[in-house]
Amino acid sequence: MAEKTLLVYGGAGQLGQAILKTFKLIDAWKVISVDFRASQEAHESVILSGDVEADVTRVAEQLTAGGVQLDAVVCVAGGWVGEDIKSKSIFKNVDKMHKFNVESSIACSHIAAHFLKPEGLLVLTGASAALNPTPGMIAYGITKAATHHLVKSLAAPGSGLPENSAVLAILPSCLDTATNREAMPNANFDDWTPLEEVARLLINWTSPDQRPVSGSLVQLTTNAKVTQFIIS
Amino acid sequence: MAEKTLLVYGGAGQLGQAILKTFKLIDAWKVISVDFRASQEAHESVILSGDVEADVTRVAEQLTAGGVQLDAVVCVAGGWVGEDIKSKSIFKNVDKMHKFNVESSIACSHIAAHFLKPEGLLVLTGASAALNPTPGMIAYGITKAATHHLVKSLAAPGSGLPENSAVLAILPSCLDTATNREAMPNANFDDWTPLEEVARLLINWTSPDQRPVSGSLVQLTTNAKVTQFIIS
Repeated sequence: MAEKTLLVYGGAGQLGQAILKTFKLIDAWKVISVDFRASQEAHESVILSGDVEADVTRVAEQLTAGGVQLDAVVCVAGGWVGEDIKSKSIFKNVDKMHKFNVESSIACSHIAAHFLKPEGLLVLTGASAALNPTPGMIAYGITKAATHHLVKSLAAPGSGLPENSAVLAILPSCLDTATNREAMPNANFDDWTPLEEVARLLINWTSPDQRPVSGSLVQLTTNAKVTQFIIS
Repeated sequence: MAEKTLLVYGGAGQLGQAILKTFKLIDAWKVISVDFRASQEAHESVILSGDVEADVTRVAEQLTAGGVQLDAVVCVAGGWVGEDIKSKSIFKNVDKMHKFNVESSIACSHIAAHFLKPEGLLVLTGASAALNPTPGMIAYGITKAATHHLVKSLAAPGSGLPENSAVLAILPSCLDTATNREAMPNANFDDWTPLEEVARLLINWTSPDQRPVSGSLVQLTTNAKVTQFIIS
């Protein structure tokens, strides 16, 4: 069987590392990380500078030099911040969320359009919160709504993605990360989605017959240690 | 009757000037333009530098110095560009559309939150196209989807807008501007929305009893010289 290759934007973060680790263990994938620092779990890491166009050029050069085509591209880079429209921080926050959430999604999608194999998989990260109004987190909400629109647009005919490829969004509510446990020590961790559940879901989706229809937004919700995937 | 004041972001553009002119003529409003150049139709013009936070600070200082409170804030700044996700221009286009469409909407909304009177009106510009996938205009589509989400979020409780104020979006299909006539000389101009129709619609909305419910996205469509407003 030919080697399968996964590229993860945000591969040095907690979710990114869990995804790389799971793909390596369960299915012997070759895994590439793209992030601001090297990922301990990756076979190869591309280090970001923060200039999105230059960064994507560098990723493309590295993939081209290695003759690599990708089976799956996953974007779990991103960030959260909260503010209302009156806040003075709105301008800095909109700029930051645009860079973190929108530019990373666009970068991954552009890479997928050029390097994904036919029947390949592109996964971006949306947010359950952004399916409804977000008056207390304007910058986060508008960038996640933009990501949802991107997923639907990339699933439409003529988007430029390879034949029979699929683009899906995961919309987490709360992920069970060390950072979240530190920030919310009194929460019920049984209602948070384990990172390994997300990784296993993505592995399933790499098989074309185990995917929701391209363009789907898939909410991840966990209650009492049971995780459900709600497709919209 | 106390003087009523309108602020238009993009007041030097074709639609902006038509709005300022109509508000002055029909209802004797005081009209302020914010744009990269002075507006011929405005009583006062604030000239933009392109640094959104500095620009908003300047607008705020000018309004505060004049003791001005606003009855209506309208954002008709913005732009259009087309590309698919494979295009090399996607990164520059996303950056440009973010500045043109998102930053101007955020700027107007922040100004409205601080200077709008109770029962005041905030109007942002969305796009009918962005109600559906936009594979051939990714940058435009995601920034207009972000604007739609902003409008819905600002209409939600706790958004920071003044009491009983309303936020609405106009979603034009094609406006009958000199620029569009030049670009598409063989189109049927009878199916384009006249700028004065938009201006008159906005004047109606300045009366609280003539507004759709806050948070509405209002599509403007014109067929055979008849313009319809479809509320969603």
